[in-house]
Amino acid sequence: MAQITLDEINRMDRGGVVDALGDVFEHAPWVAEVAYDARPFAGLSALYEAMTAAVRDADTERQTALLRKHPDLAGKAAREGAITDDSKYEQSSAGLDRLSEQDYAAFHRLNDAYKAKFGFPFIVCVRRHGKDSILRQFEQRLTNDIPEERRTALNEIFRIVALRLDQRVTAGDRLKVHGRLTTHVLDTHRGQPASGVAIELVEIDSGGMTRLILRARTNADGRTDRPLIAEQPIPIAQYELRFGVGGYFAEHGASTVDPPFLDVIPIRFAVAEPEAHYHVPLIVTPWSYSTYRGS
Amino acid sequence: MAQITLDEINRMDRGGVVDALGDVFEHAPWVAEVAYDARPFAGLSALYEAMTAAVRDADTERQTALLRKHPDLAGKAAREGAITDDSKYEQSSAGLDRLSEQDYAAFHRLNDAYKAKFGFPFIVCVRRHGKDSILRQFEQRLTNDIPEERRTALNEIFRIVALRLDQRVTAGDRLKVHGRLTTHVLDTHRGQPASGVAIELVEIDSGGMTRLILRARTNADGRTDRPLIAEQPIPIAQYELRFGVGGYFAEHGASTVDPPFLDVIPIRFAVAEPEAHYHVPLIVTPWSYSTYRGS
Amino acid sequence: MAQITLDEINRMDRGGVVDALGDVFEHAPWVAEVAYDARPFAGLSALYEAMTAAVRDADTERQTALLRKHPDLAGKAAREGAITDDSKYEQSSAGLDRLSEQDYAAFHRLNDAYKAKFGFPFIVCVRRHGKDSILRQFEQRLTNDIPEERRTALNEIFRIVALRLDQRVTAGDRLKVHGRLTTHVLDTHRGQPASGVAIELVEIDSGGMTRLILRARTNADGRTDRPLIAEQPIPIAQYELRFGVGGYFAEHGASTVDPPFLDVIPIRFAVAEPEAHYHVPLIVTPWSYSTYRGS
Amino acid sequence: MAQITLDEINRMDRGGVVDALGDVFEHAPWVAEVAYDARPFAGLSALYEAMTAAVRDADTERQTALLRKHPDLAGKAAREGAITDDSKYEQSSAGLDRLSEQDYAAFHRLNDAYKAKFGFPFIVCVRRHGKDSILRQFEQRLTNDIPEERRTALNEIFRIVALRLDQRVTAGDRLKVHGRLTTHVLDTHRGQPASGVAIELVEIDSGGMTRLILRARTNADGRTDRPLIAEQPIPIAQYELRFGVGGYFAEHGASTVDPPFLDVIPIRFAVAEPEAHYHVPLIVTPWSYSTYRGS
Repeated sequence: MAQITLDEINRMDRGGVVDALGDVFEHAPWVAEVAYDARPFAGLSALYEAMTAAVRDADTERQTALLRKHPDLAGKAAREGAITDDSKYEQSSAGLDRLSEQDYAAFHRLNDAYKAKFGFPFIVCVRRHGKDSILRQFEQRLTNDIPEERRTALNEIFRIVALRLDQRVTAGDRLKVHGRLTTHVLDTHRGQPASGVAIELVEIDSGGMTRLILRARTNADGRTDRPLIAEQPIPIAQYELRFGVGGYFAEHGASTVDPPFLDVIPIRFAVAEPEAHYHVPLIVTPWSYSTYRGS
Repeated sequence: MAQITLDEINRMDRGGVVDALGDVFEHAPWVAEVAYDARPFAGLSALYEAMTAAVRDADTERQTALLRKHPDLAGKAAREGAITDDSKYEQSSAGLDRLSEQDYAAFHRLNDAYKAKFGFPFIVCVRRHGKDSILRQFEQRLTNDIPEERRTALNEIFRIVALRLDQRVTAGDRLKVHGRLTTHVLDTHRGQPASGVAIELVEIDSGGMTRLILRARTNADGRTDRPLIAEQPIPIAQYELRFGVGGYFAEHGASTVDPPFLDVIPIRFAVAEPEAHYHVPLIVTPWSYSTYRGS
Repeated sequence: MAQITLDEINRMDRGGVVDALGDVFEHAPWVAEVAYDARPFAGLSALYEAMTAAVRDADTERQTALLRKHPDLAGKAAREGAITDDSKYEQSSAGLDRLSEQDYAAFHRLNDAYKAKFGFPFIVCVRRHGKDSILRQFEQRLTNDIPEERRTALNEIFRIVALRLDQRVTAGDRLKVHGRLTTHVLDTHRGQPASGVAIELVEIDSGGMTRLILRARTNADGRTDRPLIAEQPIPIAQYELRFGVGGYFAEHGASTVDPPFLDVIPIRFAVAEPEAHYHVPLIVTPWSYSTYRGS
Repeated sequence: MAQITLDEINRMDRGGVVDALGDVFEHAPWVAEVAYDARPFAGLSALYEAMTAAVRDADTERQTALLRKHPDLAGKAAREGAITDDSKYEQSSAGLDRLSEQDYAAFHRLNDAYKAKFGFPFIVCVRRHGKDSILRQFEQRLTNDIPEERRTALNEIFRIVALRLDQRVTAGDRLKVHGRLTTHVLDTHRGQPASGVAIELVEIDSGGMTRLILRARTNADGRTDRPLIAEQPIPIAQYELRFGVGGYFAEHGASTVDPPFLDVIPIRFAVAEPEAHYHVPLIVTPWSYSTYRGS
């Protein structure tokens, strides 16, 4: 979707704003209309505040109507493609478009239980979660009472909205919706950054299945040219960074045994705060290594 | 097989010694006969020296005959059970009794190439190797010339013999045929050994397949009650130690995020010296860890 | 003083026991007399229990009399040598026999304040403390009320007594009066224990003054042949271990810059539990190191 | 001294350039005159190249005359203030203006030996060295032959000149004359940067004397607001960084023993490359720490 600037929004008439932002809240162009009255917006945060305030200030009936308009997560509509493009993109980012039959059945069962209790579908900002984390959310939130869960669901919508605004509108300020995952390989055998080390980042689900996220190679400073993850939330999930130090040390003549004591070093860690910076360095010799959550 | 003492061997007549030790060298009771003349043996090392000297001092024809009497590794005879009990036990320890059809075919091909070049079957002390390491040996040794390879093959037989003597004969001294793998978990969050940490040791082959070797739990000193591996060579292979620190820190109230940054920590390393001591400790907090080859 | 065995004590008459143990409690042979009635002693712990019970069960008057018979710590009597040999040895172990005029004046002032408040001299098991720690004890205990402080002072006497019994009587069991300080140097540049590394252990007081305790050199296993401290309490104090890794790495050709990044590595730490085991290892390359309280 | 811009230099006539840069080479305004002909200078590097080329291209007589015009290092002239302001500033930066009588005598002796051999005074870019390193240079260079040492001495003058130009002339580019020393404190007990940790940086000479360079405190990111050393060469010397982690952990309730195991952590290291970046982080819990040369 084409980006627009906040300036352009500030100069639009009501109809233009509804055209531009009417679908940021799923099937609820009225939110953009209400927000229109708060123009001009000093920044993206102000626009976000105006839109979410419109929903927070609405009566319970209108809020519930908003919640009801959301599609089931990993539901029949999603399967058949009958959801908005934004929803489609978001559900696919968490892998919900390629569930096993078993997972699909689990989601179906939880959706039904949830709707039976709360009267609206389960809503979660899927871009902040891996599949396991969504299922854990589902189970935890099923124990909420109705007003508590209505607030929780609206908050999830606000997170979805923040991410949509972040992608759609450019402004002088940015919403705090991005995390960052970085690494750094230090060779303390030679006292230098380790350059040319092959790195893989995979996501691991609770069943032990892995999904490759990216491959990279360290540069002269022992870092990757770009963060491993940036400009998006880091989904709450378990990850493994794999560092091919065996090849690196062999190239530098530092290994003297065959097979080398350390070859591919896996570092497994979980992300709990999608908007935080996770720095996961590797300090390594052919015979030792350490890692930590850095900054 | 029942153990006998060196004293008993020292008191036996020639026939008794041949009965007791005649099959230590595969189908070559003459070695025990020659060794008999060197009695009495001051220790197991002396017995081992006497037997291996008998072979080293034999002429090439007799040495080659000895080599030829060995079964093919992972060959038809092994498959059909037509090999000695010792051989059966040794081949199974390296997993050669449960090869895939593809691996079996690879061994078959290498066996044929090897015999065509050297005129005797490929012999390796399989208890010192994982499957990948055996295949690597195979390929490397195929490049040897014949006298070099005859010496190499005899040395492998001597290693097999040392392990057989170690299992069969008790004496005041021991042959250096055992390695040792140990670990230690130190919790530097609390400044104490970490007790009650669940540990798994697995072997990993080059295809990424894993085989569970054992499960253990750390004791009050952060160690396991027994070494992870002891009283045997540690097969040359890649291993992974997995430490369940997530559960441990949760029990001690040290984790404050969900999911915890560190849950199961995998440490992957290779053993290159089967008779050495590998100490692979874990120094750990909820946010960091380090490991090294210790002593 | 010559050692005697518990068996010998068990066979002595009352006079012999008083001769042998009468001065274990300072100027209070009656304790040995009372303890005599509890013979025979199954172990050193039983003897210790019998002697300390005699004091615990005595009336307040007798207890106070016992406390009053102790010399002032670092007082005039000590200065002039008019104290028992045991006291002399103990006070010198904490450096109380070589105080500066300023420290001597501080002790004098605290002694006077203490005696004015409690009516007996300040007693502490000096072998468990460095000078700074004794002064800290002094200040803390001055805030106690009288019954509380009487109990505290008696406990200190019991600690003194335990150490005297430990030195004087050999038995099948031992009292828990000893700590242990050990180290281990692991070279993770080469993947081996670092042997031949020069080590110094010094005590550091709050004024930054250092006192050399010992020099040692690591053996083939990267350890010292004997623990750095053993068979005594480790005085509560601040220490520095200094590891001469610059020379070590130069010998092994591992350093390539001049001057080397790391030469003498100081590790400064404090001991708070004199009867505990402190293991303070160094994991080191020419470019990095780590340490921790191990076990 | 007031800074001028390269643009200003490019617009000056010959006399102006000699006024502005004539003393960059000690008592040798002719260098500025020769360089004048190479105008305009595209950058500071070009100016530096032009000036040093003028000297490199001069005949041996002129070079030797240039060398002879330098004052003795830590000599009588320096003591009596009879040297240029630049020299004064440079000699004081290495502490040469506050030598002990003993050090002064050592310099005197070495100066005499050097001049007797080479016919010109010992010249070194003192801002790149601590006192010990200068003495080591002195001894090493006394073993050179004369042409070799003339080249070495000229190179030292070029380093002095580069630093003088860097201070005096602003331009679009910069000469590579600066090193950088930085640190970072990571608290792996809490999984966060350690903020508010008191840091001291001291220089340590071979006699164990220390000189405080600066005090700082870590900010919210565990770093210091400014590099510990920047915008200058880091003198070749031994340093100690001292981190007051005892106070930090006490504030966060992480220490449970008295005295704490770790209080002030000293990290001692040497700088060998004055123009390099030295990153010396501390990864720390109340019971462990590690450091390394990072980047």
